Amino acid sequence: MRTNVDAHRVIIIGAGFGGLQVANDLAGTENIEITLIDRRNHHLFQPLLYQVAGASLSPAQISWPIRSIFRKRPEVRTLLEEVQGIDKTKRIVSLKDGTHQRYDTLIIATGATHAYFGHDEWSEFAPGLKTLDDALQIRQQVLSVFEKAEYTQDAQLKKALQTFVVIGGGPTGVELAGTIAELAHDTLQHDFRNVDPRQSRIVLIEAGQRLLSVFPEQQSAYTKQALEELGVEVIFGQPVTSCTQDGVIYGEHVLSAKTIVWAAGVQASPAAQWLNTDADRAGRVLVNVDMTVKNSPEIFVIGDTASITMPDGKMVPGVAPAAKQQGKYVAKVIKARLKGQHTHQPFEYHHQGNLATIGRSRAVVDMGKFRLQGLLAWWFWKIIHLFFLIGVQSRMSVAMSWLWNHIFGYRSARIISEKYQREGSGTVLKKPHIKANFDIPSER
Amino acid sequence: MRTNVDAHRVIIIGAGFGGLQVANDLAGTENIEITLIDRRNHHLFQPLLYQVAGASLSPAQISWPIRSIFRKRPEVRTLLEEVQGIDKTKRIVSLKDGTHQRYDTLIIATGATHAYFGHDEWSEFAPGLKTLDDALQIRQQVLSVFEKAEYTQDAQLKKALQTFVVIGGGPTGVELAGTIAELAHDTLQHDFRNVDPRQSRIVLIEAGQRLLSVFPEQQSAYTKQALEELGVEVIFGQPVTSCTQDGVIYGEHVLSAKTIVWAAGVQASPAAQWLNTDADRAGRVLVNVDMTVKNSPEIFVIGDTASITMPDGKMVPGVAPAAKQQGKYVAKVIKARLKGQHTHQPFEYHHQGNLATIGRSRAVVDMGKFRLQGLLAWWFWKIIHLFFLIGVQSRMSVAMSWLWNHIFGYRSARIISEKYQREGSGTVLKKPHIKANFDIPSER
Repeated sequence: MRTNVDAHRVIIIGAGFGGLQVANDLAGTENIEITLIDRRNHHLFQPLLYQVAGASLSPAQISWPIRSIFRKRPEVRTLLEEVQGIDKTKRIVSLKDGTHQRYDTLIIATGATHAYFGHDEWSEFAPGLKTLDDALQIRQQVLSVFEKAEYTQDAQLKKALQTFVVIGGGPTGVELAGTIAELAHDTLQHDFRNVDPRQSRIVLIEAGQRLLSVFPEQQSAYTKQALEELGVEVIFGQPVTSCTQDGVIYGEHVLSAKTIVWAAGVQASPAAQWLNTDADRAGRVLVNVDMTVKNSPEIFVIGDTASITMPDGKMVPGVAPAAKQQGKYVAKVIKARLKGQHTHQPFEYHHQGNLATIGRSRAVVDMGKFRLQGLLAWWFWKIIHLFFLIGVQSRMSVAMSWLWNHIFGYRSARIISEKYQREGSGTVLKKPHIKANFDIPSER
Repeated sequence: MRTNVDAHRVIIIGAGFGGLQVANDLAGTENIEITLIDRRNHHLFQPLLYQVAGASLSPAQISWPIRSIFRKRPEVRTLLEEVQGIDKTKRIVSLKDGTHQRYDTLIIATGATHAYFGHDEWSEFAPGLKTLDDALQIRQQVLSVFEKAEYTQDAQLKKALQTFVVIGGGPTGVELAGTIAELAHDTLQHDFRNVDPRQSRIVLIEAGQRLLSVFPEQQSAYTKQALEELGVEVIFGQPVTSCTQDGVIYGEHVLSAKTIVWAAGVQASPAAQWLNTDADRAGRVLVNVDMTVKNSPEIFVIGDTASITMPDGKMVPGVAPAAKQQGKYVAKVIKARLKGQHTHQPFEYHHQGNLATIGRSRAVVDMGKFRLQGLLAWWFWKIIHLFFLIGVQSRMSVAMSWLWNHIFGYRSARIISEKYQREGSGTVLKKPHIKANFDIPSER
């Protein structure tokens, strides 16, 4: 229900790091009305999502209701709905529920999703990690295979149940492989009677020649060594050519595995299709130097959905700080325009550095001249991430979970939902391969 | 895989308060082998489950992997599986996956579930609160109706979306009504733009003439008054005769409501059918004075699944302390038997009192001569419950959530899962009644 018909109507699609920044910076501007549309009711702190998948953190520790973030900003409306399309001429965003919304200025910050390089059928067997649901699915899968392994008498199946494949050697792949390795080799080591979780294989397959390719080579080598010390097998240069419920094929090798996690590629959200404008190979909208869309100065695209190259020829990477900087920039441009000033200052990206963590006591930090690895880097990583969480309560609660995990190897969130057990969830567990063995009474 | 073929084989079905107590007390006994079977991988602290439904706590804060509880007890095996039936003659428990387990002594502690008094079709519209999945479903439902109410222009629908019906005036009903009232009237009050959550109606319908019927009348009256001060309407003496996706009918009244929660009746798990033995009206197995089943001295039934009357003619109530006491007793009987001693001491129940909480600053405590209500009772309730949680980490984490909730009215766990939004979840939201209004552009 609009109250002020003269107000400038801003619609922001997506409440990730970029969208939230725009809403935050624009709120309080005179004569403005902001509508923040997201298909989820919460903002998600994605850098820690792998810890939900690894059963170290609970979903609520790294997500906040969008409404609650803006509860004291009456000029910001939140809409929990999915976008269906955009009419650039009529300046209308249409939603899945059949309604639509008019805008004067539109900001698209809808992020990215997994890309299976033309093999979408793999998604059923190799879930990726982008949403809380993804993380919970991976968590349930990783915990469930040990339960199945505890029962089975089929040695071959047992081995497959205890084999975990992570595809992709970027930060997410490294973090996932590290956390699964520690879960198996440490947290669960005393929990089973017929299974030795320490015998689990965790295999990271990277098509390229090194891990964390955006880091200096020396840090990639360090990361490989650190992962191997955690018990992860790292395989290079052999792209995966098949993912099924039985495992993966890479190069000439067949690897039986009941758990496969996809961390190999991302694909931008369909903003370019909504706008019918040019995109790069990953589906990102090719934006102007001021983050606007070609021929539509009233539409901005930011974050992982935008493709923009800096004067030095480097692409702006798809990381949270880039999305935030773009959000800040766009809010400034819009505010200037409302005052009748049309700035021609292009967006400038300030690279703050790269961070990645390896298990629960090592990390790599690359901030250009300042490079760090090992325990100190890990402390640096932890403090930075705590700092960026929203609210004192979240910071304290995450800090406490980390403390317990660090000291005791304890992970609190090891719950398998009954629903998941009953129905499976699109993963390999949907059709359990556990055979009945009624003729071997009392033994299983 | 059994290692010791001469060991006495104990099977415990159910890792609730009773089953856990038996396993705990029997562990360490010489020449014994314990198998704990549960269809869930976690022990659940049910007394705080309503706080998960009310978005105050996360599932992991009140549940612990059963395996992890017994990780240092190699004589305890955990089986994540559902029981299909029991063969008393062959002494075999058969499982849903087609395998089976032999026992020398069997303890059934499978608890209870909701009873709809012959109206199982109501379960779709009026979920009960017994498992984490139940709690999450109620939480998502309660949070989602406000999101729908924010969009709709249909005043009647808006009213139904903002009407919450709790059926049943026992402790669960009182706790749920209180927590929903506070969520709506306090936590969410600034979050919406087109909806005033403070206008929400929370209606508690009790077929009898008072709330908390096991408490003294004066405390029932206090509870009613305290709930009313939180904004809950309490209706007595009119049983519900219909539950649909549009609301409830009670007495002569039709009440439109999109959220209905069932807290009215429980039904024991099907243990009596497995055993083909006598049960009371609620399906509880009629056990001997030593908690054994008629003609099967090697089978014990305890907790909410057992029906036992004390010499004073009172039934042992279905509460956690009763289940724990029975667990303790049964472990003692089994240990004595293994030493060749056959005790004939019957089970004696020591009633410790009743506790119930009303919102976030009041409670009632009835411990016979010691009665308490109001803020002091609430502190007593909190401390008792913190004490019974497992582990320092859980206690600290729950205490912190309560502190924040108490001081700021903050509830951390307000997440609507995307999956839930997409698929609904067997509740009224499955078929949203939100109409498209494409002909009123930009307004919704």
